[in-house]
Amino acid sequence: MNQLHDTAVRGFASDNYSGVHPEVLAAITTANGGHQVAYGEDVYTERLQEVFAHHFGAGVEVFPVFNGTGANVTGLQSMLPRWGAVISASTAHINSDEGGAPERVGGIKLLTVPTPDGKLTPELIDREAWGWGDEHRAQPLVVAITQTTELGTAYSVEEVRAISEHVHRHGMKLYMDGARLSNAAASLGLPLRDFTRDAGVDVLSFGGTKNGALGGEAIVVLNPEASVGLKYLRKLNMQLASKMRFVSAQLIALLEGDLYLRNASHANAMARRLRDALDAGIAAGDLPGLGFTQETQSNGVFATLPPGVADRLRERFRFYDWNAARGEVRWMCSFDTSEDDIDAFVAAIREELARA
Amino acid sequence: MNQLHDTAVRGFASDNYSGVHPEVLAAITTANGGHQVAYGEDVYTERLQEVFAHHFGAGVEVFPVFNGTGANVTGLQSMLPRWGAVISASTAHINSDEGGAPERVGGIKLLTVPTPDGKLTPELIDREAWGWGDEHRAQPLVVAITQTTELGTAYSVEEVRAISEHVHRHGMKLYMDGARLSNAAASLGLPLRDFTRDAGVDVLSFGGTKNGALGGEAIVVLNPEASVGLKYLRKLNMQLASKMRFVSAQLIALLEGDLYLRNASHANAMARRLRDALDAGIAAGDLPGLGFTQETQSNGVFATLPPGVADRLRERFRFYDWNAARGEVRWMCSFDTSEDDIDAFVAAIREELARA
Amino acid sequence: MNQLHDTAVRGFASDNYSGVHPEVLAAITTANGGHQVAYGEDVYTERLQEVFAHHFGAGVEVFPVFNGTGANVTGLQSMLPRWGAVISASTAHINSDEGGAPERVGGIKLLTVPTPDGKLTPELIDREAWGWGDEHRAQPLVVAITQTTELGTAYSVEEVRAISEHVHRHGMKLYMDGARLSNAAASLGLPLRDFTRDAGVDVLSFGGTKNGALGGEAIVVLNPEASVGLKYLRKLNMQLASKMRFVSAQLIALLEGDLYLRNASHANAMARRLRDALDAGIAAGDLPGLGFTQETQSNGVFATLPPGVADRLRERFRFYDWNAARGEVRWMCSFDTSEDDIDAFVAAIREELARA
Amino acid sequence: MNQLHDTAVRGFASDNYSGVHPEVLAAITTANGGHQVAYGEDVYTERLQEVFAHHFGAGVEVFPVFNGTGANVTGLQSMLPRWGAVISASTAHINSDEGGAPERVGGIKLLTVPTPDGKLTPELIDREAWGWGDEHRAQPLVVAITQTTELGTAYSVEEVRAISEHVHRHGMKLYMDGARLSNAAASLGLPLRDFTRDAGVDVLSFGGTKNGALGGEAIVVLNPEASVGLKYLRKLNMQLASKMRFVSAQLIALLEGDLYLRNASHANAMARRLRDALDAGIAAGDLPGLGFTQETQSNGVFATLPPGVADRLRERFRFYDWNAARGEVRWMCSFDTSEDDIDAFVAAIREELARA
Repeated sequence: MNQLHDTAVRGFASDNYSGVHPEVLAAITTANGGHQVAYGEDVYTERLQEVFAHHFGAGVEVFPVFNGTGANVTGLQSMLPRWGAVISASTAHINSDEGGAPERVGGIKLLTVPTPDGKLTPELIDREAWGWGDEHRAQPLVVAITQTTELGTAYSVEEVRAISEHVHRHGMKLYMDGARLSNAAASLGLPLRDFTRDAGVDVLSFGGTKNGALGGEAIVVLNPEASVGLKYLRKLNMQLASKMRFVSAQLIALLEGDLYLRNASHANAMARRLRDALDAGIAAGDLPGLGFTQETQSNGVFATLPPGVADRLRERFRFYDWNAARGEVRWMCSFDTSEDDIDAFVAAIREELARA
Repeated sequence: MNQLHDTAVRGFASDNYSGVHPEVLAAITTANGGHQVAYGEDVYTERLQEVFAHHFGAGVEVFPVFNGTGANVTGLQSMLPRWGAVISASTAHINSDEGGAPERVGGIKLLTVPTPDGKLTPELIDREAWGWGDEHRAQPLVVAITQTTELGTAYSVEEVRAISEHVHRHGMKLYMDGARLSNAAASLGLPLRDFTRDAGVDVLSFGGTKNGALGGEAIVVLNPEASVGLKYLRKLNMQLASKMRFVSAQLIALLEGDLYLRNASHANAMARRLRDALDAGIAAGDLPGLGFTQETQSNGVFATLPPGVADRLRERFRFYDWNAARGEVRWMCSFDTSEDDIDAFVAAIREELARA
Repeated sequence: MNQLHDTAVRGFASDNYSGVHPEVLAAITTANGGHQVAYGEDVYTERLQEVFAHHFGAGVEVFPVFNGTGANVTGLQSMLPRWGAVISASTAHINSDEGGAPERVGGIKLLTVPTPDGKLTPELIDREAWGWGDEHRAQPLVVAITQTTELGTAYSVEEVRAISEHVHRHGMKLYMDGARLSNAAASLGLPLRDFTRDAGVDVLSFGGTKNGALGGEAIVVLNPEASVGLKYLRKLNMQLASKMRFVSAQLIALLEGDLYLRNASHANAMARRLRDALDAGIAAGDLPGLGFTQETQSNGVFATLPPGVADRLRERFRFYDWNAARGEVRWMCSFDTSEDDIDAFVAAIREELARA
Repeated sequence: MNQLHDTAVRGFASDNYSGVHPEVLAAITTANGGHQVAYGEDVYTERLQEVFAHHFGAGVEVFPVFNGTGANVTGLQSMLPRWGAVISASTAHINSDEGGAPERVGGIKLLTVPTPDGKLTPELIDREAWGWGDEHRAQPLVVAITQTTELGTAYSVEEVRAISEHVHRHGMKLYMDGARLSNAAASLGLPLRDFTRDAGVDVLSFGGTKNGALGGEAIVVLNPEASVGLKYLRKLNMQLASKMRFVSAQLIALLEGDLYLRNASHANAMARRLRDALDAGIAAGDLPGLGFTQETQSNGVFATLPPGVADRLRERFRFYDWNAARGEVRWMCSFDTSEDDIDAFVAAIREELARA
């Protein structure tokens, strides 16, 4: 197959526009050759359990799956009876970006709460945490939070713990969508375990794809009492890879050493560099009309631009509108974003704002 | 990541115990680097449309997905209203090996028919093709056949055409589970189009994984009037890859040249070599108790063994019982099965039968 | 069977705490005796089509079902592909009181909007009416409004028309939950057709149960192009009555003459009587702490009471808290609520407020 | 409402072509008047628990629902995790006549077994009772039998017990579709408990509709450890009646005294009278071409007729073909079938056979 694309082109559209980190690709190659039992009884998937136990502690159970939507829907389903509902932020990926899969495939009602920054709090949870025992109301039995959030913010350990205690006090369970869990570890400067298992999270998804994998996520059961039937649910939700060794190898490559952290730290640092340069420009008064809607705590910058600027800028670097009505855009950095990319983008922003 | 397995070990358990063909891995590497639009708007997925059009004719629509169950359930769903049912052989993968995904995720009732060889016929279809307009009966609106079948047999062009004409005459549509479609092309010695689109198949799945891919299948709409909404169904069925360029690259690697055919022809030839050697042994009277339950028309051999033989043989080469009650076993060959593998396996069978 | 209850006791909890209107019971008796074809091919269900055509115009299609949740989920499903979503007020019955049936049985994502009075407007609809063509977003293809609303308010003809025009302009369809459609007719003083079919509603449910039936609702297709497959969906959603003649007879009893209007007008008048008496008391300054949160436009009064009053009052007349946090209660009147009931209730409210 | 039908006309199409028994209608009238708490907290539903406890023993839990399909799907769902499958006879109502509701609404895969007489046995169950622990196979966790069967046959106490012991030995549960449970009691001459709870049935449906009710069934949990969440499942499956007092009153009317048995015994006796008269005619050689395909053990007679006879006979009495291909018809008797009806039908059969 011929190469059809320019490998020098990078943008700020999404961390999944990037490709595969070389060490991940090497792991796939290493796992190749010969025969391995399909559907998860291979040695790499076995090894993966140890790798996750190293990060999250003994007794965790890991189920590799294809993608984030699959991880979320399957993980949540394993925590809920058929009549269960999930409380989440209205900006949660499960509510906004999964095409109704939680409802249609999972049979799960979402009870959503608006938030300023993508983060739930005990108070926000309470807006929907009621009605247990009333069969007319889908029963709120799980709270789902995203770490880091869809708005680039991160929960502190204390914030996660306050939520988990509140959730458990009400007999509910806590799920964490960790599509960008590595970015949270980098942002908080903490081991993965500190802000997940030790902070009271019951089940989470661990995202490999946005962190440099070709494609692979894992459902991680931190509290085995909080989840049932994942073996069967993964299969019937069509998330069981036959050649699972290659999904597991990718996750091992990320987590066996510190690649997950290197990739995430770099992506976060690039977002920081972008934000800092723009903040400096604003302070200097030479970026008229530029503003920010969220703190930059991981690998995404959420900004507002004057009318027309986003479209012109997009002719040079690809990125998405977040809320077109208020001129809000999202700029994502990836493991492969370079300092030169950032500097060139800042220059372009400067030029387009000057033209505005 | 260290290599944890012996790459010299191969068995006869399944064609998905094998790994990735080097040319497929090379294509993944070629597609790497730089940024590409996620979720299918990349240049490799664009190119994939041309590659499939080359094989199946202009106007076909290709939707890469993660796995065979996902392809089948999503493809069938796109052909059916909510009240639709699918007629299939009772041995069909959708009935036997998908953990209830067609029913639970797809909402599809299966109307199954026993067959001697995994193949439906117009007469067999008629056992369940009735009751249209009666709301008490899930409406049989699609017939699903597998090519090659789960029993290693292949439909001839004439057989597919007889079915499609029958199916269409009754206002139904024809789906083909092509997890091993390449093996059928090799078995029949025909272009893919001849026994699919030109024989009246409306929608099919094309299997890459069992043919040397890391993991990747495609739903292929041959008759656009027979399928609706795949764009949305793929997403909500959690089969939409973010870094789709790598799924598409694998399928391009298989289908752009003749790799699909080389791999399938080799796997078929190895099964033929196995069957021929054993047939010769039987004819010579020195393989007492060995028999066959199906013709060997692709890459699988279905045999019966005297009690105890299968378990002893399995200590040397991995394979599955097919029907333990009658001593039936399944031996699958793969793109990477070698002549030496076959010869060693035949020798082992000979030894174990002698010991029986 | 002995009578186990006191037939003199009535309260203000719900219009479905009431029993069966004598004329409805008489119709059931009239439809009894001899054999009639089951599942809807009986003469009463045939007659029902004429009865609805009289009210809604020629060409409407009527599907009797068991209950309101069944009517809503089945009706909405018939208007939507599998990837469809429904925009509704957050207070809509489909969102708040159906135990997740729209999501789990219907496979429907709800996109909900907060409203001050239970009523959507084009502007409120626009908060969720976007994202068509993006497979990551469940597609908003139907808007659902309730008439009269769950908050006792009624849409005017102009309001319905403004919504329907807006909805249709965006290629969506309009569903009306008519569990209390008769109350709307009584409130607006208009024929049923004026504020439904002629105002652009595509499909509605007509509620019999809250209007004096034993149990029976109907899905009414006003625009046959907007709904498909109800015959099958009703069955597979388990809403197909075998002895349908008795469901149809109830609806005929309500709609053949003016019983639907007499019942609804009376219930509305009783709510009016309650509101007027309390408004007068407030004006006279002798109902300290009583307030109202909604206009009284049909058969429900939404009030706020000082702490403790609701519970004491409830010892004498049954009713529900609507929002306990802000002391809001709901008082519903029914076809069998008497003027004496109202007067006694007003006296009780007066007494308990005096005691507060 | 005017009477639109001839109350003298009765046929042999189905026991749900009949109307409401006068004592059931009287019970509905008795339960009318005043207000009762909706959704099952009324005094009649409370009383119903006692009535069922009288028949089935202390500790049973009763959930009134609208219809048989609703009872079956909801009851089975309460016994199964999301990955569960149900083994049933291929002629079971859940497989043949519920429009795919078990699959689509229940998410349940059915594993069906052909039987000669509609009755499962331990041996027949074993054809599908395997594969536990294998996630590729929907897990067979419930066996469903119908009593009396869809073919008019009845399980003896010993047959039910043999099944339940077999089922429980394999860790599965036993469900009984009791749409015609009263006919079984009449056929066996035994209390309801003897061939249900005491014979090892875990959950059953009790059918009121075919036994003289207007419309009403009950899910009866005999073994509370075998079922979970019915309170919620009934609601979300859209089977929760608001004016439940009227469903419960019907079931009380049937079961408080012996009406269930009188109605069923009469229907059975009429089928017996029909069979006996025809057997006598055959013995006398004057009913050429008439045969029977099943024993007549309840209220249905399954016969074969020479070509053309069924259609001519149907011009005089309504009934259904059972298997048109082999000339098999089904003649059902009801609580309101008279001896004169039988005698007239026998005469008509005689005439039409003579003309054949």
